[in-house]
Amino acid sequence: MYDTRPRGRSASTLGCCATLDTRHQFTIGIDYGTSSVRALVVDIADGREVACGEYAYREGEQGVVVDAGDPNIARQHPRDYIDGLIASVRNALSAAARDPIFTPAAVVGIGVDSTGSTPIPVDEAGEALALKEEFARDPDAMAWLWKDHTAHAEAEEITTHATERGEPFLAKCGGVYSSEWYWAKLLRYLRKRPDLAARTAGWVELCDFVPAWLTDRTDPSSCPRGVCAAGHKAMYHPSWGGLPADDFLDNLEPGLSRFRYTTNPVPSDHKAGGLAPAIADRLGLTPGIAVAVGAFDAHMGAVGAGAGPGTLVKIMGTSTCDCLATPMDRELPDIPGLCGIVPESILPGAYGLEAGQSAVGDIFNWFVSHLTPAEYGGTDAAHQKLSEAAAELSPGESGLVALDWNNGNRTVLVDPLLTGLLVGQTLQTTAAEVYRALVEGTAFGALTIINRFEDYGVVVSDVINCGGIAEKNPFVMQIYADVCDRPMRISRSAQTCALGAAVFASVAAGGHPSVEAAQAAMTGTKASVYVPDAGRAATYRELFRIYSQLHDAFGSTGDKPRTDLGTVMKDLIAVRQQARAARSPNGAADA
Amino acid sequence: MYDTRPRGRSASTLGCCATLDTRHQFTIGIDYGTSSVRALVVDIADGREVACGEYAYREGEQGVVVDAGDPNIARQHPRDYIDGLIASVRNALSAAARDPIFTPAAVVGIGVDSTGSTPIPVDEAGEALALKEEFARDPDAMAWLWKDHTAHAEAEEITTHATERGEPFLAKCGGVYSSEWYWAKLLRYLRKRPDLAARTAGWVELCDFVPAWLTDRTDPSSCPRGVCAAGHKAMYHPSWGGLPADDFLDNLEPGLSRFRYTTNPVPSDHKAGGLAPAIADRLGLTPGIAVAVGAFDAHMGAVGAGAGPGTLVKIMGTSTCDCLATPMDRELPDIPGLCGIVPESILPGAYGLEAGQSAVGDIFNWFVSHLTPAEYGGTDAAHQKLSEAAAELSPGESGLVALDWNNGNRTVLVDPLLTGLLVGQTLQTTAAEVYRALVEGTAFGALTIINRFEDYGVVVSDVINCGGIAEKNPFVMQIYADVCDRPMRISRSAQTCALGAAVFASVAAGGHPSVEAAQAAMTGTKASVYVPDAGRAATYRELFRIYSQLHDAFGSTGDKPRTDLGTVMKDLIAVRQQARAARSPNGAADA
Repeated sequence: MYDTRPRGRSASTLGCCATLDTRHQFTIGIDYGTSSVRALVVDIADGREVACGEYAYREGEQGVVVDAGDPNIARQHPRDYIDGLIASVRNALSAAARDPIFTPAAVVGIGVDSTGSTPIPVDEAGEALALKEEFARDPDAMAWLWKDHTAHAEAEEITTHATERGEPFLAKCGGVYSSEWYWAKLLRYLRKRPDLAARTAGWVELCDFVPAWLTDRTDPSSCPRGVCAAGHKAMYHPSWGGLPADDFLDNLEPGLSRFRYTTNPVPSDHKAGGLAPAIADRLGLTPGIAVAVGAFDAHMGAVGAGAGPGTLVKIMGTSTCDCLATPMDRELPDIPGLCGIVPESILPGAYGLEAGQSAVGDIFNWFVSHLTPAEYGGTDAAHQKLSEAAAELSPGESGLVALDWNNGNRTVLVDPLLTGLLVGQTLQTTAAEVYRALVEGTAFGALTIINRFEDYGVVVSDVINCGGIAEKNPFVMQIYADVCDRPMRISRSAQTCALGAAVFASVAAGGHPSVEAAQAAMTGTKASVYVPDAGRAATYRELFRIYSQLHDAFGSTGDKPRTDLGTVMKDLIAVRQQARAARSPNGAADA
Repeated sequence: MYDTRPRGRSASTLGCCATLDTRHQFTIGIDYGTSSVRALVVDIADGREVACGEYAYREGEQGVVVDAGDPNIARQHPRDYIDGLIASVRNALSAAARDPIFTPAAVVGIGVDSTGSTPIPVDEAGEALALKEEFARDPDAMAWLWKDHTAHAEAEEITTHATERGEPFLAKCGGVYSSEWYWAKLLRYLRKRPDLAARTAGWVELCDFVPAWLTDRTDPSSCPRGVCAAGHKAMYHPSWGGLPADDFLDNLEPGLSRFRYTTNPVPSDHKAGGLAPAIADRLGLTPGIAVAVGAFDAHMGAVGAGAGPGTLVKIMGTSTCDCLATPMDRELPDIPGLCGIVPESILPGAYGLEAGQSAVGDIFNWFVSHLTPAEYGGTDAAHQKLSEAAAELSPGESGLVALDWNNGNRTVLVDPLLTGLLVGQTLQTTAAEVYRALVEGTAFGALTIINRFEDYGVVVSDVINCGGIAEKNPFVMQIYADVCDRPMRISRSAQTCALGAAVFASVAAGGHPSVEAAQAAMTGTKASVYVPDAGRAATYRELFRIYSQLHDAFGSTGDKPRTDLGTVMKDLIAVRQQARAARSPNGAADA
C-alpha cells in the first residue's frame, strides 16, 4: 500500500547541542484559509518550520458570515483579516522565541497567500468598507468569500456577453465564467448595492489586500496586484493587454470599467514593497523587510509542496484546488472547464493551470453533520469511525455511486447550479457505505480533472497532495490512489501554502536566487507514498465509467450535448427558489 | 386540510347497559403480515372489532430469515405460521371473553389472508418441509417470502420464454414476470435444490396453506386454492384453461409441470371446508364452522376497507399493495406493468387489479435505521421528529427528488434490480429534507400507478388508504393527497385486511348473502379525509415531472425506449455482486 521512496531533502532538525547560527535567515508565510489565518516562521536554509501562529476568525459561523435563507451567501469580515494577521504573527514570533537560533531581527521577508476569488470592496484610500463603523454589519460590504455563489446569474451573463461578442477573455478560463470569481461578484454588487458602490473605489483580492496593507500601498488604483488572482479570476492576460476592455465591462453594466485597474500584475517572486514602519512595530518585525506580492493559497501551496513542471498539486480541504505548472515552451490549447491558464501564476517561466472541486471535505462534513447515526459518535469521532468502517468495504461492494456536486462543480463543468446525487441505495445500505461512496465520488471528480488535463496534452507526471485530508486521512488517500491509479505523494510540510508563501518571501528578500533554488532548499514530500492496488483500480475503472455516464447526463460539459437530464438539477433549484420565495414574502431568500 | 364527510356506517359501540344478544354471530379474520400474524374477532352485524390477538414471528430478524451476504434472500419459517395461528386466535378469544355478548360458540367462520407470493414447499401430505426436523434450519425449505428477490434471473427467463413462444400467460400480469412470484421462485428452487425438490410434492401459497391446514385438506394435489394467489402470481386464467400448460413449464425446466395443480381456484366467498375437529379443539372453537378460501392481504384489505368498483385501496405498510376492482362489463386491455388482472380476485363479479410499490415504510425505516443523526432520538422517536420537521417544509423547498426504488420497483416497472436515487442535495441538506424527499418519492410512485390505470381507461374514482402508515402518519397522508391531487380517505378499521377476511368468512358461513351486503354491514371509512391543497399540488406537478424524467431514464418501462442511463443501476448491482463474490471465495454471496 505504501512505498517509502523519499523525495526532496529531509527537513533538518536542530539537535539540542546546536550553537547559535547568526547567519540563519527566516521568512514568514501568512496563509489565509476559510476559517482561520496562520503565520509560519520558516528557516530559509532548509525549510524548517520554526513556529506557527494561528487565529480563528470570530465573525459568522467558523469565520463565514452566512444567511439561513440563502445558501449561496458566504462572506467574511475584513476585521478578522487584520486582527488575525497581527495575532497570528505575534503568536508565531512568541513561539519562535523558544528556538535557540531564531530572532525577530533575522526575519527578512513576508509572503501572503489567501483563498480566492475573495475580493474586498475598498474606498479611495484602500480601506475596506466593512472596517467603517457604518458598514460594519453589512454582509455586502464585507469580503465576498470564494464560496459565495450569489452571483451565478451574473456569471452566466458574463459568459454569454463574452461569447456573443466573440471576446477572447474566457479562452484561458475554460470558456465559462464562474460565480465564484471577481467580475461576477462585482457586477452583482454594483447592481444590488448602488449605495455601497458609490462609496467604493476598488475591489481588491484578499491576497493583494494584505501585502498592500503591510506595505502601506493601499490606494486601489496603484496597489501591488498579483498575476495569480488577476489571471485566474479577473480575466487578465497579456495577450489582450490586461484586464477586459472598458467597453466590454461597461456594456455589462455602465460604470463597471471604473474597477478596471491598470497596474501591471506580477508573479510572487516580486516584492510588493517594504514593511511599513507602523505595522512593523505592531508585528514586532524590522521595518522595510521585503513583502512579496500575494497569490492564492493553492498556487503557493503547489510551490510549498515542491512542485516542478508536470506535478499536479492537490490542496485537499473543505474543497480542493488543483494546481499544475507546465512549461511555456509551447502554446497551450484552450482547455474547456479549466479555471485558468495563466503565465507564471505558479512558477516563473511556466504556465500556471488551476482546477478544483467545489466541495470535498465539506461533503464529508455535511454527511457527518446531517446524516450520521448516533452509533458513530460526535463529529470528530464520526469521521474516524466512518472511515474505519468504510475502509473495511471493497470497491463496488456497496453498489453506490455519488456525484460530488453538493456545492456545485468547479472543474470541469464550471456550474454552481449542480447538486449532489446518490444512486444505488437499497434497504440494506449503511452509513459507512454512503460515506465511502461520497469519498469515492470526490476521487472520481479528481480523476475527471486529471483526464481533462491529459485529454488536452498537458502531462501529469506526478501527484502531490497537501492539506488537512491528505495529512490526516489515509483511508481517503488510498481511495484516491486506487481511483486515479497513480501513486499519491504527500507534502512533507503540513503547512504547504504558508510554506510556499515563505518560499516566495525568501526570493523577494534576496535570500534565494530563484523559486526553484528556494524550493530545492525548503520543500519536499514524505517518505511514505500511497500506491494503487491493481485489483481495486480495475473495479474503480468500472465505477468511474458509471460516474462519467451520470456526470455527462446531469452536467453540461460544454463540449458534449446535454441530455434531457441535464436540466434536472437546475429545475429542482428553480422549484426550491420558488418554494423559498413563497415562504419569505420579502422575496429575499435564495434570490 | 381535512373534510369530515363520513362514508359508510359508523361502527356501533356497545353501551355499558347493553343486554346479552344471543343472536349475534362473529367471524375471525386471520391476517398474516410480514412480521406477525393477527386474529381479529368481528361482529358480523356491524363490523365491530371485538378483540384482536397478535403473535410476532420468532425466527430471523423480526420474523424474516435473511442472509447478510445476499440482500435478496427473505424467508419465513412455517413454524411461525402454525404457532402464530394458534396463539393469535387463542389470545383473541381470551380477550373477547371480556365482551358481554361474545361467546366462542357464536363464532361461525374463519377467513384467512396473507402476504404473497409467499409459497411454501410441502410433501405429499401437505406438510411443510421446514416442519420436518431434517430441514428445519434450511432457508430454502422455508416459505419464500414475498420480498425474496433471489429468483430475478428466473423471472427474466420466464418472461423471455413466454414472450418468445408468443404465450398469452403474461398478458394479465403486465407483460413481465416478477422475481417475487410463484413460478420464478419455484424454478429457482428446482434448480438450486434438487435434493429438496425430490422431497417436494407441491408449492402452496401461505393464504392457501392455512385454510388447508385448518380444514385438514392439505394434500397439495387437491387442497383448496384461491383465485387471488393463482391469478395474480401463478399465471392462472380461465381464458387459457388454468395454469400455464405442461409443455411451457417443462420447457423452462424438466419436471416443473409436476407442480401444475389442476384444482379449480375460487374466490374467497367460497368455503374451503369445515374446521377440522382436532384443530377446533386446539383453537377453542366449534368443529365444522366455515373456513373461507384464502386470498392476499391487500385484496382482502380492499374488501375490508369497503371498496366498491372504482375504489383504489392502498394498503400502506413496509411496502404497498394497491387493489382496484373494476366492472367486468367490458374486456380490459392488457396494462403494462400491472401485477395482475384477475376475474373475481377482489370482489365477485369484478376484475381484480393489483399493483404495488416494493418498499414504502421500509424506505422510511431504512433512513431512520441507517442515516438519522442522534438529535432525532431512537427509532420510534425519530420517525415522529423527522415527520414533524419535514412537515414544516414546503413542497420543493429542499430541492431534492428521490426515486423510491430501494427495494426495486414492482409497478409499473416490475424490476427488482432497480435501486434508490437521491438528487439535489447541497451542503445544507438536512435529514428532515431527505426524509421528506423519500416520502414524496413514494407518493410519486403511487401517482405513477394511478396514472397507469387511467392511461388504460380504468377509472379511479376514489382512494381509500389502510395500514399502519395510513393510520398513524398524517404527514405522509397529506403529502399523498397533495402529490396525487386527490382526497385520501382512511379505512375506519385499523385492521382492514383481517376485517376483509372476516367479511369473507361471514359470507362463506352464510351470515350475509353477498360480499356487498357484508361490506355494507361491516365496513366504512373515517370521518376525516386528507384533502389536497391547490398550491402544494401545483408544486408537486413540477416535481412529479422531474421524478418522471428520472423514472423513465433509470427505469425501463417496456413501452418507452431505455436511455443509456437505464443500465446504471444494473451495472452497479453487477459490480456489487463481483465485489461481494470476491470477498466470499465460496461465491455464495449475492449470487
